[in-house]
Amino acid sequence: MQKDTIVAIMSSSSPTPPRVTPQGADSAVEILKVSATSKPVAVAGAIAGVVRQQSRVEVQAIGAGAINQAIKAIAISRGYVAPGGLDLVCIPSFIDISIDGEERTGIRLVVEVR
Amino acid sequence: MQKDTIVAIMSSSSPTPPRVTPQGADSAVEILKVSATSKPVAVAGAIAGVVRQQSRVEVQAIGAGAINQAIKAIAISRGYVAPGGLDLVCIPSFIDISIDGEERTGIRLVVEVR
Repeated sequence: MQKDTIVAIMSSSSPTPPRVTPQGADSAVEILKVSATSKPVAVAGAIAGVVRQQSRVEVQAIGAGAINQAIKAIAISRGYVAPGGLDLVCIPSFIDISIDGEERTGIRLVVEVR
Repeated sequence: MQKDTIVAIMSSSSPTPPRVTPQGADSAVEILKVSATSKPVAVAGAIAGVVRQQSRVEVQAIGAGAINQAIKAIAISRGYVAPGGLDLVCIPSFIDISIDGEERTGIRLVVEVR
């Protein structure tokens, strides 16, 4: 089993400049870091909040437990924003995340309005 | 840890009639069942194959390990079909899956061309 070291939901703006990201996602986008112990409903609320304001958000997760919570959160958030006419899709890709100086491969889920 | 009972990749057409599904997905769509032991690259190949022919596919997974493999597979499959001009997105929702007569909650990931 993989160990999930990312902590609870933590919103932070990406410091890198826009238009220079490798995998097709803007980096000026808000980032939500999800762990295996994150509550899907809480993360879903955060996703909905950011998406309503900026039409997209990036969810990062490392390890099966964290990815599981992230996907549940996205499924729940679709229901939160649907009444407002927003249809959310997610675009998964791999990312290298540095944690305590150690490089780990994680999953980036870009959530955006279709 | 959750136990993943769904076995390896298994492609099957959904037996239910179209246009009567609850969560916004067509049910005439091909279904790929992914387990915690499924190989992401193999599942990615299957996703790419179905998407090229039918522009969408439904990936089902139960448990964190299976969802992890499914998301990795979708990330990989995006790279497989991108050279053909296909931009894949995924739409997660919850489903009740019956396994050996037992109802379990799983995740449905509808993968489709944007």
